[in-house]
Amino acid sequence: MNTLAPRPVDAVIAAAAEFLGERITRNDALRQQHARGEDTSTPTMPDAVAFVETTEEVSRVLKLCHEHGVAVTPFGAGTSLEGHVNPVRGGISLDLSKMTAILDVSGPDMDCLIEPGVTRNQLNDYLRAEGLFFPVDPGSHCTIGGMCATRASGTNAVRYGTIKENVLALEVVLADGTVINTGSRARKASNGYDLTRLMIGSEGTLGVITKIRLRLHGIPEATSAAVCQFPDLASAVNSVIEVLQMGIPVARIELLDEVQMAACIAFSKLEGYQPVPTLFLEFHGSEAGVQEQAELVEGITAGHGAAGFAWATDAEQRNKLWKARHDGYWAAIASKPGSRGIATDVCVPISRLAEALLGAKEDIVASGFSAPIVGHVGDGNFHTVILLEDDSQATLEAAWELDRKIVHRALALGGTCSGEHGVGLGKREFLEKEHGPEALAVMRSIKVALDPKGILNPGKIFRN
Amino acid sequence: MNTLAPRPVDAVIAAAAEFLGERITRNDALRQQHARGEDTSTPTMPDAVAFVETTEEVSRVLKLCHEHGVAVTPFGAGTSLEGHVNPVRGGISLDLSKMTAILDVSGPDMDCLIEPGVTRNQLNDYLRAEGLFFPVDPGSHCTIGGMCATRASGTNAVRYGTIKENVLALEVVLADGTVINTGSRARKASNGYDLTRLMIGSEGTLGVITKIRLRLHGIPEATSAAVCQFPDLASAVNSVIEVLQMGIPVARIELLDEVQMAACIAFSKLEGYQPVPTLFLEFHGSEAGVQEQAELVEGITAGHGAAGFAWATDAEQRNKLWKARHDGYWAAIASKPGSRGIATDVCVPISRLAEALLGAKEDIVASGFSAPIVGHVGDGNFHTVILLEDDSQATLEAAWELDRKIVHRALALGGTCSGEHGVGLGKREFLEKEHGPEALAVMRSIKVALDPKGILNPGKIFRN
Repeated sequence: MNTLAPRPVDAVIAAAAEFLGERITRNDALRQQHARGEDTSTPTMPDAVAFVETTEEVSRVLKLCHEHGVAVTPFGAGTSLEGHVNPVRGGISLDLSKMTAILDVSGPDMDCLIEPGVTRNQLNDYLRAEGLFFPVDPGSHCTIGGMCATRASGTNAVRYGTIKENVLALEVVLADGTVINTGSRARKASNGYDLTRLMIGSEGTLGVITKIRLRLHGIPEATSAAVCQFPDLASAVNSVIEVLQMGIPVARIELLDEVQMAACIAFSKLEGYQPVPTLFLEFHGSEAGVQEQAELVEGITAGHGAAGFAWATDAEQRNKLWKARHDGYWAAIASKPGSRGIATDVCVPISRLAEALLGAKEDIVASGFSAPIVGHVGDGNFHTVILLEDDSQATLEAAWELDRKIVHRALALGGTCSGEHGVGLGKREFLEKEHGPEALAVMRSIKVALDPKGILNPGKIFRN
Repeated sequence: MNTLAPRPVDAVIAAAAEFLGERITRNDALRQQHARGEDTSTPTMPDAVAFVETTEEVSRVLKLCHEHGVAVTPFGAGTSLEGHVNPVRGGISLDLSKMTAILDVSGPDMDCLIEPGVTRNQLNDYLRAEGLFFPVDPGSHCTIGGMCATRASGTNAVRYGTIKENVLALEVVLADGTVINTGSRARKASNGYDLTRLMIGSEGTLGVITKIRLRLHGIPEATSAAVCQFPDLASAVNSVIEVLQMGIPVARIELLDEVQMAACIAFSKLEGYQPVPTLFLEFHGSEAGVQEQAELVEGITAGHGAAGFAWATDAEQRNKLWKARHDGYWAAIASKPGSRGIATDVCVPISRLAEALLGAKEDIVASGFSAPIVGHVGDGNFHTVILLEDDSQATLEAAWELDRKIVHRALALGGTCSGEHGVGLGKREFLEKEHGPEALAVMRSIKVALDPKGILNPGKIFRN
């Protein structure tokens, strides 16, 4: 490199400093924090981190990066499990975590307008007084902007849908700094291409989300939770299929295998449960409706050999149960002290779920890893947390090999390589097999149309 | 034109006849039938109609049209209200109505794979024995391929979502004949750009849908319908808002204004009802759940001054009621014998619905037209049927002027020009105002990326 010519990224940083001041920084510790998410990719430091606070600032940064051909990697809470926030081509890490305003909440419309750095806990704390809630709940303290970017879901999707069913419209800054709105506040529309859904799951490769209009839901009059323990995984899965076919509107239906259940019992001090395949359920509705749902589900699970059906209408008990479920990842890690985890994320048609799960368990046993399984079984989605007890490259490779086996089986069963964590770096190798080269070429052509210079989160989704 | 050189479309027709035989035709009567839908656009005859029966045939026709630069306008049941099937640039009308196979139904997965010419009635007749149903129900005998192309909905959307929430994946033939699949059978996925949702609502301008993987729902154990009559429109709308805020899972909640109600009473011989603003409701669930929902709604509507609340759990009475609702268009036409109708289709945030409805009523009165109003009020979507009592251009222009007023008010209230009928020819003039020129430019860039020669349903969505 000619040392006399300034690098393009230096020109961007200098120009952005004029309006961001110290909020664009080359500080080493901050660059290190923005070098990857909660994944196992090799960290890459950005040249600078820009802490933006307004749509206009995002637009000005992107305009500069576009002019100078500098890569931009959006960053929220840094909880990605697939390498989304790793700035593999350097450039600017665009940190949106300070954009946390809740701009507007409408009770009658049951919607709200927020900035992308708002987290679900922040939003739900705010909404409680309005009698409303936002149901999408990935198992991390992620931002809602990040949820939109990765098409996230969580434990409530079986009843309330994923993020894609819960977003009405987005404000998005395009690669060249142009600001667009992708929709109105209408609940439905047939008004041209669905740019909202195009942006949701585009992982920062088509634009940067700067405002989100969310659908909200009324806090149900009554809620109850139940725990139901099974002799084997297949009985648990077949119960789920029957519950869904009966149209029982369960709010949550989560599977923990015997390994995960043992880990949760130990970690969260759950008393009175056995380390066997277990369903955690939640019912939302009226007092009578919740009771009726629980009784119907109890009948179904008994027919599949369930040993017990413990209810909890009491909020404290319920919260303990769901905290244990949400802490499943940490319980898994704690079951092998000192280990770290790689989360897999396949989703299959529910009729093939038992096969996918049992096949995954066989692969896990053959691999020698400990890998508890949790599943959003109402959607056919499950995760294993592969526990790595050392830091060697060989162990990491072996873990990825296990992940590959689980993914290829899911694809063979008509499923997907990623139910909710996204593609990022980690799932790129599967996309051509999953979609076929022709559909992948369509995605690439859209990427080129919207980001011709390839500055937006380069290296993600597509292998170049 | 040089009479010695064959026209490109003639070359396409000759080449397609080699594999379609008599299924590609220049027959005048058939071309006339394919000159427009159930809309008021000026009919345009295609050069030929191609009755395709397989994905391969669609692919071969598109490949030919792509090579020769000939326009292709997909055609299903011809029920479009916005000019979608009018082949404004001539070329080939691609008739998919013979592709009516139901290829696969999975009870455990509650999904099915169908060809695009299947209608909802055909599908639901087939599914009944499986205990399943498909909820999306536009008020016409449209094909499900057409529903996907126009992002349709209907009376059940408040509970079950629109078509976009009920499609898992599509098989689509692109402009150059390439066949892609847009998704797996997984219920959710975070696996790259959402090509399924991009195609849904693209109105045949990005590809031709040749297979559809639909989500299905279990037929509820119990169903009941109710009719509830109000002193004024605002009381009806405020009841709807309260029902939704309470989280009562109504399956249908439809508004008829006093003009529409009078027309329905006369046309469908509904006895015991007054010609006043009226809600038709339906409840799905268990026996007890349905009763509880109805009682809750009765309490809410009474609080808003509703005069009566008539239930019908009996299937025959229910069917009569919903047939009356679905025949609303014909009832409107019959209220002015000899007239024809133009359906408007705005959707607004529900908090603005009363304002949008009352404003529309004022505009109707000022216009001198008779125009009954029906609304999918749970979604904030309503239609007026503007009744044209003569065939003059002046009357047509005046009706469109009324439509424009209704649309502009909806846009000002944060709504959309089209809740479910699509853009086609009729709503193109509003898109720039609704989306802004920048978002519209993104849509155009996607169109150019996927259909660089502009052969797919040219003239629709975009004004050139």
